[in-house]
Amino acid sequence: MDELRTLVIYDIEDDKVRLRISESCLDYGLVRIQYSAFLGALNRNKREELFLRLCALLDDNPGKILLQPICDKDVKEVLVKENEKPSEPDVL
Amino acid sequence: MDELRTLVIYDIEDDKVRLRISESCLDYGLVRIQYSAFLGALNRNKREELFLRLCALLDDNPGKILLQPICDKDVKEVLVKENEKPSEPDVL
Repeated sequence: MDELRTLVIYDIEDDKVRLRISESCLDYGLVRIQYSAFLGALNRNKREELFLRLCALLDDNPGKILLQPICDKDVKEVLVKENEKPSEPDVL
Repeated sequence: MDELRTLVIYDIEDDKVRLRISESCLDYGLVRIQYSAFLGALNRNKREELFLRLCALLDDNPGKILLQPICDKDVKEVLVKENEKPSEPDVL
């Protein structure tokens, strides 16, 4: 099954929930690109599986999660600016 | 020129810079979907113009900005989970 670059962004207040969400993204081979944003290649099954896992972790806590697959053509059009001092991960 | 749904996400420590970045996104007709994420339709010119504006606002401050255009086909594949109590904007 074709893998597509998938961007995961979330907005979650609870520190423990946010940490678990980030750990799940890492489990699925995604790379942290911002404090609350991960990117990596996933096929549709894995994408849906990760989404369900993140939904289960969020449960009834307030927050938002978005998984956006991005085709290769669009990946090439990304515009990125990054200055030093990257965000700290949830745990060091 | 064709407009593409464009996702803007950023990770910026300085409150004033972050506020200005969010204001610029609103100026370009984007809608806030998370605390530090905006979405809206932009053609290539507008997308590059907004990117340059955001880079100028970030200047040498630490931080990251990403603008990702997303084609209509991919937009349909988005997975979203949202629980109540949305993030507060920078200003009310």
